[in-house]
Amino acid sequence: MNALNIADYMQTLGAQAKAASAHTARAPAAVKNKALRTLAALLRQNAPALQQANQRDLERAAASGLTGPLLDRLKLGAKDLETVALGCEQLATMPDVIGEITGMKEQPSGIRVGQMRVPIGVFGMIYESRPNVTIEAASLAIKSGNACILRGGSEAIESNKALAALVQQALAESGLPADAVQLVATTDREAVGELIAMPKYVDVIIPRGGKGLIERISAGAKVPVIKHLDGNCHTYVDDPCDLEMAVKIADNAKTQKYSPCNASESLLVAAGVAGDFLPRIGVVYAAKGVEMRACPEALRILATVVPGKLLKPATEQDWFEEYLAPIISVKVVAGVDAAIAHINHYSSHHTEAILTRDHMHAQQFLREVDSSSVMVNASTRFADGFEYGLGAEIGISTDKFHARGPVGIEGLTSLKYVVLGQGEVRS
Amino acid sequence: MNALNIADYMQTLGAQAKAASAHTARAPAAVKNKALRTLAALLRQNAPALQQANQRDLERAAASGLTGPLLDRLKLGAKDLETVALGCEQLATMPDVIGEITGMKEQPSGIRVGQMRVPIGVFGMIYESRPNVTIEAASLAIKSGNACILRGGSEAIESNKALAALVQQALAESGLPADAVQLVATTDREAVGELIAMPKYVDVIIPRGGKGLIERISAGAKVPVIKHLDGNCHTYVDDPCDLEMAVKIADNAKTQKYSPCNASESLLVAAGVAGDFLPRIGVVYAAKGVEMRACPEALRILATVVPGKLLKPATEQDWFEEYLAPIISVKVVAGVDAAIAHINHYSSHHTEAILTRDHMHAQQFLREVDSSSVMVNASTRFADGFEYGLGAEIGISTDKFHARGPVGIEGLTSLKYVVLGQGEVRS
Repeated sequence: MNALNIADYMQTLGAQAKAASAHTARAPAAVKNKALRTLAALLRQNAPALQQANQRDLERAAASGLTGPLLDRLKLGAKDLETVALGCEQLATMPDVIGEITGMKEQPSGIRVGQMRVPIGVFGMIYESRPNVTIEAASLAIKSGNACILRGGSEAIESNKALAALVQQALAESGLPADAVQLVATTDREAVGELIAMPKYVDVIIPRGGKGLIERISAGAKVPVIKHLDGNCHTYVDDPCDLEMAVKIADNAKTQKYSPCNASESLLVAAGVAGDFLPRIGVVYAAKGVEMRACPEALRILATVVPGKLLKPATEQDWFEEYLAPIISVKVVAGVDAAIAHINHYSSHHTEAILTRDHMHAQQFLREVDSSSVMVNASTRFADGFEYGLGAEIGISTDKFHARGPVGIEGLTSLKYVVLGQGEVRS
Repeated sequence: MNALNIADYMQTLGAQAKAASAHTARAPAAVKNKALRTLAALLRQNAPALQQANQRDLERAAASGLTGPLLDRLKLGAKDLETVALGCEQLATMPDVIGEITGMKEQPSGIRVGQMRVPIGVFGMIYESRPNVTIEAASLAIKSGNACILRGGSEAIESNKALAALVQQALAESGLPADAVQLVATTDREAVGELIAMPKYVDVIIPRGGKGLIERISAGAKVPVIKHLDGNCHTYVDDPCDLEMAVKIADNAKTQKYSPCNASESLLVAAGVAGDFLPRIGVVYAAKGVEMRACPEALRILATVVPGKLLKPATEQDWFEEYLAPIISVKVVAGVDAAIAHINHYSSHHTEAILTRDHMHAQQFLREVDSSSVMVNASTRFADGFEYGLGAEIGISTDKFHARGPVGIEGLTSLKYVVLGQGEVRS
């Protein structure tokens, strides 16, 4: 397609999505849940064909030189398919939030005023190679009564086309418009530029991918973007603190998995417990090959137990860094005030935890730390839509506007005012 | 100031607002309420000086040729000052929503997860001539724990400077940073361009003024904008309907005041009641000099009671029009389905009302009309923050993102996740 054709094509997708969204917005819960269960069944029935399509993507990617974790992320195995099918079925069992009316109160004029939860309309999703995101996004769109336009990574185009065809089949078989979930069928980059600049048809854009992708999209978008930038998460070990618990949590927050955005990248330790705590966590990290980039005081303490190759002085840049790797920055701070000041200055406002026995410190940390998730005595790795009971997650927002933190179905809805009168007029 | 100086000046205001917002975010409710009551007292004590400053604005505006309603809007009378002072005192008596934690539930992992309401940070407000908006915005900023940067109309600069000085005095006397509310002291237009493009310092922009102003700001903004575009509101008279009530409401919705955005601009009437209803409302409108622009069927019925000079055929453009004047478009529709389809096509998604006795029609209208306020048997003129019990209103959003409809204190806040654990880790 040339640029003009792509513009036309995207406008067509947009108009179709908008038209479909009027239908999905008023679809009964039973119809949406039927579509989700039908989709789950189709995914299982068509697993061999889906894996063949995925195999073509994998071969093309390998031929073009893709290797290692990037190639792994593209793979759609039997287990991945079962996971997304189960996810659809779980969504089907969740209560429907669309149409829910809350806060209905009588006002002095006699009118009663409340708010009704309604779908936001049409969302555009732009994501990188993992093809299972196609089903996650489609199923959230169905459950929330929205329409969506999906733009996956070019490496996964065959897998995504095969998955999207099943989604449209499930929609049609359940009496919903197939256009409620549309995949952008071209891998041309121009299509993204169009998708993010159609305020007439698209209400919000949700990008999932690296910080570069999200910054590019935010800069060019003409509609709101639910942004998930980086996750420079902190774990702060307070004084007083149960150090055994602190070792367990600081270990988990860093090492349970290195790549997620909610892994801790920085460890802050109150001066009063640093001498006891740092050697204990230092031994644990060192045993797992985690490199520690430390302030002078932490460096002095850690040097007694950590081999030199895993211990380095931290630079100013280290305090800003999201490593997504077996590296952690370590700083000794005077106490909770200094920890909060450090976090609010260096953090990416994703997720921060205080480990403490002090009730006042816990309350202050929860109130004053300006991040999308603030935790007491728990691993930052819990910052996740499933762990928070949202049932599903379309992304994590590091913005404050509209949705903050893990975004589930409610993040894809808005509230309209409902007014019930009996003939009242304004005087 | 030249452009470079203005950029520097605005960056300074931004940095100061951001620094102040960290203090206001954690200010106790008692301190914020003290600032509001102090402000009310200062407004009353300084009424003569405020009116002198306002007099200078009025004289300059009159000399430059401003007349009529535009000059009236600029006037800050004793009654206007008492109204805003009372508004501050009312806000002080309202419950504080900042720090409120809701939805705390235990998850399968053992962690408890809820959400805490926190200020959004810094908002920028851009408004036209009415100087009382300076106090409305400042008082909402104080109550909600936000900092704000206010850019009023150039005609009102003397009044706004005098008002803003009192706000800063009230803040300082209550132990809050004076920079929490700053007025842009230059009337240079470049300042607006800077204000809407400082994502580092400003979290959201709220413009109040004509559609042109809001479209210009939305197009240039690098941060989210709470948009209030036009209010093409509809009143639909259903079949069956209590016609006496319908006459009273349709009259009030159009004629109680012509200029507000929530006045009805279009009257839809079900065919089954048109023959009875239209002559009755036609007489009422005609007596008040309201011009009716009607579809052929409505024209035929109205011609029997409405003088020719007040009756015209409606053009296609009329169905889109926000008149803000003694003019209304009138259309006969087949029934509730046609009314909903017409509204969703032509409306600006602000406020629409159905007048009906039919429960199913009422429910359908509430569900399917895609507007920020949907009403049954009430005047569209009720779409207002005070009437909805929000305590105050910073604007009305015709967007679906973040805030929709009248925006009060909650629209200036966001929710962060709070996680309480007892040592849980992710497995």
